[in-house]
Parts: sequence; structure tokens; C-alpha cells
Amino acid sequence: MADESTHTRQDSPLDGIDAGGDHPKLALGIDLGGTNIQAGVITERGQVLGRAKVKTDVESGFEAIMDSIASAARQACEEAKVPMSAIHTAGLGVPGPIDPEKGVVIEAVNLRWNDAPVVMGLSDRLSVPVYADNDVNVAVYGEWRAGIGNETPNMLGVWVGTGVGGGLIINSQLHRGAHYSAGEIGHMILLPGAHLGSRSVEHNCSRTAIAHELIKLIRSNHPSLVTSLTDGKLHKIKSKVLAMAYEQGDDLVRTVVDDSADRLGMAIASAVTLLSLDQVVLGGGLVHAIGEPYVDLVRDSVRREVFPESLRNVSVEASMLGDDAGMVGAGLIAFEELWK
Amino acid sequence: MADESTHTRQDSPLDGIDAGGDHPKLALGIDLGGTNIQAGVITERGQVLGRAKVKTDVESGFEAIMDSIASAARQACEEAKVPMSAIHTAGLGVPGPIDPEKGVVIEAVNLRWNDAPVVMGLSDRLSVPVYADNDVNVAVYGEWRAGIGNETPNMLGVWVGTGVGGGLIINSQLHRGAHYSAGEIGHMILLPGAHLGSRSVEHNCSRTAIAHELIKLIRSNHPSLVTSLTDGKLHKIKSKVLAMAYEQGDDLVRTVVDDSADRLGMAIASAVTLLSLDQVVLGGGLVHAIGEPYVDLVRDSVRREVFPESLRNVSVEASMLGDDAGMVGAGLIAFEELWK
Repeated sequence: MADESTHTRQDSPLDGIDAGGDHPKLALGIDLGGTNIQAGVITERGQVLGRAKVKTDVESGFEAIMDSIASAARQACEEAKVPMSAIHTAGLGVPGPIDPEKGVVIEAVNLRWNDAPVVMGLSDRLSVPVYADNDVNVAVYGEWRAGIGNETPNMLGVWVGTGVGGGLIINSQLHRGAHYSAGEIGHMILLPGAHLGSRSVEHNCSRTAIAHELIKLIRSNHPSLVTSLTDGKLHKIKSKVLAMAYEQGDDLVRTVVDDSADRLGMAIASAVTLLSLDQVVLGGGLVHAIGEPYVDLVRDSVRREVFPESLRNVSVEASMLGDDAGMVGAGLIAFEELWK
Repeated sequence: MADESTHTRQDSPLDGIDAGGDHPKLALGIDLGGTNIQAGVITERGQVLGRAKVKTDVESGFEAIMDSIASAARQACEEAKVPMSAIHTAGLGVPGPIDPEKGVVIEAVNLRWNDAPVVMGLSDRLSVPVYADNDVNVAVYGEWRAGIGNETPNMLGVWVGTGVGGGLIINSQLHRGAHYSAGEIGHMILLPGAHLGSRSVEHNCSRTAIAHELIKLIRSNHPSLVTSLTDGKLHKIKSKVLAMAYEQGDDLVRTVVDDSADRLGMAIASAVTLLSLDQVVLGGGLVHAIGEPYVDLVRDSVRREVFPESLRNVSVEASMLGDDAGMVGAGLIAFEELWK
């Protein structure tokens, strides 16, 4: 960790930034994933003053991962040239359902965690109040406050990758609901007539679902560029492979991806209708890999299916913050919770 | 109208009821339907002190219907033995989408209205502030405040009859959304693979949809009690006929109704999952006619399909206020708007 005393008030990059009073308010925003930990020093307006990225060593266990997060946080402060003492709070996004009151991750499959006391673990190490929430919730919050959302009162965020996650802003607040699980659009029923285990949005529209469908079709002799792009290792169908095949006009990939985008749009239309929403933001690996063509298809489907007609101008756009959404949102939501 | 001076403070039924100060606060609650107008004198706690019911003469036009409402309101006051001067506000539920800011019914098909200025029309006649909203919204609000809802912070109400309507309470407020249309669960997509015009919840779960399906099956020689119960006039399949056939164990009606209840439960499960709700109330003609067996089927389906598991104890119950929900809710929401 850098010697904090070497940074004086005079040469601080904070001068003039968000300095409402004598002491600019800063938060750490941390996005904990199964592969990487991203940490950033975040201003009240969602600017990133410094950042760090370290690998998540899932094998190392809970305490070691907490240490890695604290270390990434210190690196981000160093990059931002601010002392840890300038940090008022820290926000953490985790890949799993959380009990925010207890500060405990109920389950995180990627990390092999159950009932993990992340708030205590991290506040002990950083000596600031810590707020933890689901990773998609914080990303949607970040996008709403500092990205595409423009703080419109009601917004749905849908993140498409390995799974399909979501978050809801209602009346200018992150809506958590009775069991802190609100926004889970991936678990809405898409096909009531399908078998249990293949009915939900996630079962039909995630990158995993698209890959399964492609593998099934390729194995029944439908040709696709995906075979050569993965050297025949079809279990390696990731978002980038799909995006490459899509861009090169691969018929099979286009059919499967377009169909899934259309279906996702129908589920989003149901949510937009139910909540009378005028803003939807799309994020996650698949959305950013394929980009505009995917977003256009989802938007067309949403607008075709919403009720009433006045909702047909609903905005459906890709996330502006991309990979930073979770980190920025974690910092911003920590401020929000601190000032409640 | 009764001579108000004949009612003195001493013999008023209001003594001891909701009398927080010297002047007990009363509202008129009015439920305007295509067949009947129900008016009631409503206390702040949702008690009904007096009521009146008159026919809706759709042919008579807007001004005459406004007159009928005012007349029903005066009758309700007479029955309650309170002078009109005791009324602080009036709430109106109308069968169609509303612009609450303009106080205008955008469209009410049953009444053949477009852009009908109900708030002005009624406040001119009653000389109190008038608040108007969609009929299902006010019924759900009534059920939430004075019925089954018990003022839980988040609740979905689903009304099943000719169509399928709904209303949403979020964070202890009626949620209207960007275009005042929130709660329209009837227009969520239920079957993405079906033709346009038969995809929505309403297309599959309303009493109208059930009747259509039965007529189709009866015409292809499936026997049903419905034929004799309607004297072969199958266009007369109303909720009561369905309830009678259902109670008598008619196979065809049971199959079609049970299937529609199961599908409705899936749509409700999607809403419960998306919003993390712990309370759902069911109302409307079909729900009250068939009663418990229908509610049980919907509840089973909701609980089977929700995510996460913690939502499986979601409460799914029939409306307690029944036909009064709209009238009571209209009165209560008028108070709420008055004090905003």
C-alpha cells in the first residue's frame, strides 16, 4: 500500500472534482465475479478516479478472497492517488442472492459460497461501512445513475450472459421486494407448455441456452462456423465465438440468436406492460459481444408486444458503462445506503 | 335529496366512528361499470356507512351518466344519514384507461366514451374534489387498504372476468408507471409461439377466452352441461353458468377452467418473481363465481413456478370485499389523493 502521507491536499487529483464541501466524498466500488475482481475509486457522480483488477482464486476460499478484494481496493486508491482515509464507504456486487440486512451472500455457485458474511469480512479489512448487493442489481443501479438511465424514475435492466439476470428501478429506487430477489426476469416463465426445467427466460435466452441449442443442431448435421471457430470443442461456445459467427453471417447462429432475442423481447415486453416502463437497458457478455444487431432485435420485439400503444416508444438500449457498470454501481449504491 | 337540516349532530350514525377530530372525514366511493353504478359513503378506514346502486344507461350519454352518478351519491348519503356537506372528496373507478393528471377517461369501450372529462363533470355536480382512476386499480387499492391486503408493502391484484385486469401496490403506493397503465397483467405475453391476438394472458385466461374455448369444443361434439344450462345459447356463457357446470363436475368445463387457472398462475408467478411479491389477491366475476377451487388451482400454479424458493409461501387469496372493492377503494384513494 502506498504511503498515504506522500499525497498532500495540494497535488490531489480530487481538487475541483465533486468537491461539494471541504472533503470530497469517495467510495470504493467492487465487482466480485467468478473470474475477476474489479475495484474502483468512485465519486458521488460515478466518475472512476482509479481502478484495479485481480483474478478471483475460487480455490483459495472465503477469507483469501476477502484479502484479494481489500488488496484490489488499495491498488485502486493508489492509482487514484487518494489515501484510504478519503474513502467513506464501500459497495460490493456479488454473483448470487444476498440478504442485505444480514450482509450475507446466501449462495454464490461460482464462488462455492453459502451464507458468506461478506459485509463483516470486508468492513473489518477496509474500516469503512460496506454495503453488498447482487451483481446485476448494482450494475443496473450504476447504469441508471451514471449511464443510460439518466435517473428516469422507472427502469428495467436485463443482463444476458451465462444466465439472464435483471434489476428494477421503481420510483427512483432499486426495488428489492419481499425477499430481496426482485428483478429476476431470467426466472419468469417464457414457455408455459414446455417441460419443467426449460420454461424460463434463462432456459431459452441465456448464452448457455443458445450454445445448447447450437450444439444440438450442429450434432444433427446443421453446418455452422462455430465448429471451426471452436476447433470442434463445442463446449467452448462463448459470447465472442457467437459474435464472430454472427458477424460473418453464419445462418445457424443467426437463426438461433435472432430467435432468442425475439423471445427475450417478449419477456421484457411483459415486464414493460406490467410496470408501465419507459426505459430498458441491456447489458452482459452476450449483449456487448454481438452489440447493435442483438439490441435492435430485442427492441423490435418489445415494441411489437407492449400494451398499451403509448409504450411503443419505450427506450431499449445497450448499457453505456459496459464492464464498469457493476463497479460504478457498487460505489454509488454504497453512497446511497450511507446517506439513508 | 333529503333535507340535510333534519340530521343533527346528536343523532348522526357517525358518532364514535373514525372521529379523529370534531369532523369525521367521509368520502364518496363510486364504482362506474357498464351495467351498474355503485356509490357508497366511505370512512377513512374503509367502512361503508351508506350505499346506492343504479343502472348505467349507456345510451343516455356522458352528461346523463354523470347525473346518474351524482344522484346515486346523494342516495348513498341519505342512506348513511349524512349531509353532502360531510363529504370531503369523491373517488371514481371507471372501466378504462385514464389520464389522472387531466382527469380524463382516455377510452371506455363499455360506455362508448373517448376522452371523457369525468373529473370535471363530477366535481361540478358534487362540489368536492374528485379523483378518478381505472376500476381495477381502485378495487385493488380497496382490497389492499381495507380487505385482504393488510397494507403489506407490495401486492398484486388480478381481476378475472370479461377480461383480465390488474393493479400493483409497490412500496405502499398504487404503482401507475410511466403511462398510468401499470398492473395490466392481462396484456402480458403468455404464449410467445401463438398467433398475434391469442398470445396474451387475457386471450387465454379471461371468462371470454374460456367461453370461446368451450364453444369450440362443444361444436366439435364434446358434451357439456353448459349446453343445457344456457338452453343451447352458447353466447350466454357467463361466470355463473361456468360455476354451476364446474360445481356439478362437468368434465369439459373442469378441463378448460382448470387449464386456464393453471396458465393464469404461471403469468402471476412471473410477476411475483419479477417483483419479489409476497401477496396476491384475486377478484372479479369468474373468481367469485367459482370460488375456492379456482383460487386453489391458481395458488398451486403460482407456488410451483416462482423463483426463488423463499417465495413459495406467497399468499394467493380471493378478494374479501368482493363487489364492494371498487367502491371502497375509490373512496379510500380519494382520501389519499386529497392529503398528498
